[in-house]
Amino acid sequence: MPVTSPYHLIDAAFILQLTEILGEANVFTDSQVLDNYSHDETEDLRYQPEVVVKPADTAQVSAILKLCSSAYVPVTPRGGGTGLSGGALPVYGGVLMSMERFKSIIEIDTENLQATVEPGVITEEFMNAVAAEGLLYPVDPSSKGSCFIGGNVAHGSGGPRVVKYGTIREYILNLEVVLPNGDVIWTGANTLKYASGYNLTQLMIGSEGTLGVVTKIVTKLIPRTQHNVVLLGSFLENEAACAAVSAIFRAGIIPSALEFMERKGVEWVIRFDDIKFDLKDNVKAFLMIELDGDDLDMIFKDVEKVNEVLESHGCTEVLFADTAAQKEDLWRMRRVMAESVKSNSVYKEEDTVVPRAALPQLINGVKEIGARYGFESVCYGHAGDGNLHINIIKGDMSDEDWKYKLKEGIVEIFQLTAKLGGTISGEHGIGLVQREFMPLKYSEVHLNLMRGIKRVFDPDLILNPGKIF
Amino acid sequence: MPVTSPYHLIDAAFILQLTEILGEANVFTDSQVLDNYSHDETEDLRYQPEVVVKPADTAQVSAILKLCSSAYVPVTPRGGGTGLSGGALPVYGGVLMSMERFKSIIEIDTENLQATVEPGVITEEFMNAVAAEGLLYPVDPSSKGSCFIGGNVAHGSGGPRVVKYGTIREYILNLEVVLPNGDVIWTGANTLKYASGYNLTQLMIGSEGTLGVVTKIVTKLIPRTQHNVVLLGSFLENEAACAAVSAIFRAGIIPSALEFMERKGVEWVIRFDDIKFDLKDNVKAFLMIELDGDDLDMIFKDVEKVNEVLESHGCTEVLFADTAAQKEDLWRMRRVMAESVKSNSVYKEEDTVVPRAALPQLINGVKEIGARYGFESVCYGHAGDGNLHINIIKGDMSDEDWKYKLKEGIVEIFQLTAKLGGTISGEHGIGLVQREFMPLKYSEVHLNLMRGIKRVFDPDLILNPGKIF
Repeated sequence: MPVTSPYHLIDAAFILQLTEILGEANVFTDSQVLDNYSHDETEDLRYQPEVVVKPADTAQVSAILKLCSSAYVPVTPRGGGTGLSGGALPVYGGVLMSMERFKSIIEIDTENLQATVEPGVITEEFMNAVAAEGLLYPVDPSSKGSCFIGGNVAHGSGGPRVVKYGTIREYILNLEVVLPNGDVIWTGANTLKYASGYNLTQLMIGSEGTLGVVTKIVTKLIPRTQHNVVLLGSFLENEAACAAVSAIFRAGIIPSALEFMERKGVEWVIRFDDIKFDLKDNVKAFLMIELDGDDLDMIFKDVEKVNEVLESHGCTEVLFADTAAQKEDLWRMRRVMAESVKSNSVYKEEDTVVPRAALPQLINGVKEIGARYGFESVCYGHAGDGNLHINIIKGDMSDEDWKYKLKEGIVEIFQLTAKLGGTISGEHGIGLVQREFMPLKYSEVHLNLMRGIKRVFDPDLILNPGKIF
Repeated sequence: MPVTSPYHLIDAAFILQLTEILGEANVFTDSQVLDNYSHDETEDLRYQPEVVVKPADTAQVSAILKLCSSAYVPVTPRGGGTGLSGGALPVYGGVLMSMERFKSIIEIDTENLQATVEPGVITEEFMNAVAAEGLLYPVDPSSKGSCFIGGNVAHGSGGPRVVKYGTIREYILNLEVVLPNGDVIWTGANTLKYASGYNLTQLMIGSEGTLGVVTKIVTKLIPRTQHNVVLLGSFLENEAACAAVSAIFRAGIIPSALEFMERKGVEWVIRFDDIKFDLKDNVKAFLMIELDGDDLDMIFKDVEKVNEVLESHGCTEVLFADTAAQKEDLWRMRRVMAESVKSNSVYKEEDTVVPRAALPQLINGVKEIGARYGFESVCYGHAGDGNLHINIIKGDMSDEDWKYKLKEGIVEIFQLTAKLGGTISGEHGIGLVQREFMPLKYSEVHLNLMRGIKRVFDPDLILNPGKIF
C-alpha cells in the first residue's frame, strides 16, 4: 500500500553515513530484513522501510536523528513489533529504527524501589528480574513475553492489572529522550512527586514515538504481594457478566484483574491452543477475577464477597484456581485469545474503553451494530477498566464490504463509545489504523493542540509521520 | 513590587464589557477587594490586579478569556489562594479571575466510582461528600480545609497520602478546559485507561493555570479503607529518622502516610497552636506513620514490622494513636506546621523532592549549606515520597542578606537536590518564586519545549504570564 511521500528518498551516500554511525553490521538494506520489519501485529498491513538500523546507545540514536532531520528522511522507531494499531509501520518508507539492542536492565534500586532500564528490554524479562528482588512491576500487557518496555511507554500500555495497580503512567518516573533534531533531555526527575513545570514525562507516555525516541526509562516499583487466587465465573448472557463487573467494585473489592471473555473467544482458544476446558453448552460469557494480597484469610474473605456478587448476577458456575498450574491455565486462555482469533480469519481489533458501568450498553450496542452491518465479533478484555477489545471477523465478508461497509459500522461503535463517556483506544493507541476515527471523539480545536505540540518537538515532522492525526 | 508590563491597561470600556458578561455584582475594582486578591500564601509577596472577576459558568469564563485575548489583557486564574509558589499572583496586573463561584459537586457516580466536580469546591468538602458514599478521594494537601480542587489540579498536588495512593495525577480522568482564546475542550474521556493521542489531561495537571482554565473535573474514586492507626516515632538525629524511611518500604510496608518533622517545627507548633505534647529534651526528629486497611489484624501485623524497623534505626519512643481524637491530635501537629513557622518569622519555603533513600544526604546537606550561609531552617514533609519542605527562617538576617546572600544558598540546595536525582518542586509548583531556579535543573532545550507548548495553547501569552519559565 504505497503512500505519496513528501520526504527525500534514501541514497547510497545516506546509507554510507548511517554505516559510519553504526558500523556496517547494524545497517540493513536487504529485502529479507526490510520485509521482516514491514509489519507489526496490526491486521495484515505491510509498509516497507528503505533501511533498517539498529543503534545500541543514546549517542547513536542522536546521530541518526540529526542526520535524518538534516536530510529530511522519515524515521519510524520500533519496539517489539507487537503493536495493534500500526504505530511501528514505516508508512513513508525511510529509516526503520529498531530498539532491539537496547537490552540492558541498568539498575534495580532496592533502596528506592526504582529501576533504570533500556527500552528494548522485553517486559516479562524485566518483571522477572524485578520479582527476583521481591518487587513488582505490574504493567503486564498480554504480549508481555515479546513486547518491549519502550513500546509500552510509547503506547501508555495497560494490561490486566491496571484495574488495581494503574497503567504504565503511574510507574514511569523519568525518561531519557532523544528529540528529532538529536538533542537529548531527561524529561523529569527520579521522584514520586513532580511539580516542576509541564510534565514532559507524562506527555511522552502514549505519544507513540512521534515526539522523541526514548533511550532510558526510570520506573517505580512496589513490594510484591505474597498470594493470589483466580476465579472463573460462567454466565448465560454477555450483559449479565458485564453488569457484575461494576457490582464487584461497589462491594468494596479491588481485584488485581477482572477480565471478560465471550464464549466464541474461548471456543477459538480451545481449538487454537489445544487447551483442555469443559465448555458448557449454555454458557455465553466468562469473568476471570484475580484477587491478590499478603494475607490469604483476607483474600478468602474477598472471594466470598465476589462469589455473592457473581451469584446475584446470574453466574451459573465458579471455577476456583489456587495452584500455580491452575492459575496459569486460566490466564493462558485469556492471553492467547487475540492470537487464536487471528489464526481463524483476517480481523480488525477495536480497543474501546468506557466507564465500567456502561459495559453492558457497550456490548449490546456492538452486537446490535454488527447485526445491522452483517459482521461477527468476538469481544474480550479488561472489563474492570471498562476496556473491551472488539475483534471484528472478516470471515466470509466480501473484500468490498470489509473495506467500505464495515467502516460505517466501526464509526457507529466509536460514536457509541464516545456517547457513553469513553474513547477510541484504551491501551493500543491510535497509530495508523485509528487515525481516521479521531475526529469522531475530538474536535478540530483539540486535534490542533496535538498537532501544535507535535511541531514543537518535531518541526520538520520526520519522526513517525502518518500516525495519530 | 511593580513589573514592567507589555500588556494593555484596563480602561472603563473594558470594565463595562466585563460587567456585560458577568453582571455588576461580579466585577470588582474597589481597592479593598483588589488588596484581598493581591496575595496568596507565598511569603509576603503582593501584586495588585486591576480588576477581580468572579464567573460562575464555563460560558462566562470563555467570554472573559475571549475578551482579554482580543484586548491583550493578562488573566490570572485563582483557586483558594493557598498556593506557596505565587502561582495566583497577578504579576502584570490585569484581570484576576477567581473561581470561587464554581462550587458545585455535580455528580458522585457510585456505579463507576467517579465524580464530576467544579474547580471551586474546597478539597476537604469534596472528600467528605465522597466519604459519605463510602468512597475515598485521597488527595489531601495540608491546606485541604481551604484550598480548591481546581488549584490542586493546577499544581499537581500531593499531600501525605501520595505515598500509598499517588498524587492527583492518578485521580483526574478528564477536564473541561477553556483555552485562552475562549475555545472549550474536554481533555480526555471518563475512563481509567486512555491511549488516544497526546494526553492533554496529564499535560494540564501541574500547568499552573498557564495553558487554560479548568471549569469541570472528572475524578476517579476508590473504596474507602475501614481502619487506620497512627504511630509517632522519636529520634535523636534527623539522619537516623530519614534513614528509617526507606527501610520501612524495604520491609514490604506501604504506609498510607509517612511524615518527617524536625524538632523545631514541633516546638513552634506547640507555641502557636497550644497543642499539649511532651517534647523530650534529647529528641531531634519525628516520623509520623499512618497505616490503613480493611482488616485490623493485618494493620497490627504491619505495626509490628514498622516498630522493628524504627527500633533498629535508633528510635527512642513510639506513640501509638488509634482513637479518632489521638490521631487528629498528631495530624494537627503536622498540618499547622507551615502556619506556625510563618507566625514566627518571614520565611521562604523550598519544596525539594529526591528519591527517598537520598533523604539523609539531603537533610544533612541543607543543614551544612545553612551553616555556611548563616541561615536557620525548619524541615518537615512527606518523607515517604522523598518530599522535604525546607522552611528557611529570616529571623535576624539582614534584608540585604535575605535578598542576595540567601539566594546563593538556595541555589546550592537545588543543585544538591538535582544531584541526588530529585527536582525543585514536588508538589508546590514553580509559579513565580521558583522560576529563576528552573535552569539549575532543566536545560535550555528542555525549557524551550515548555515554552513551545505554552505558545500552542496561548499564542498571545495572556494566561497567567510570568510563571514557570
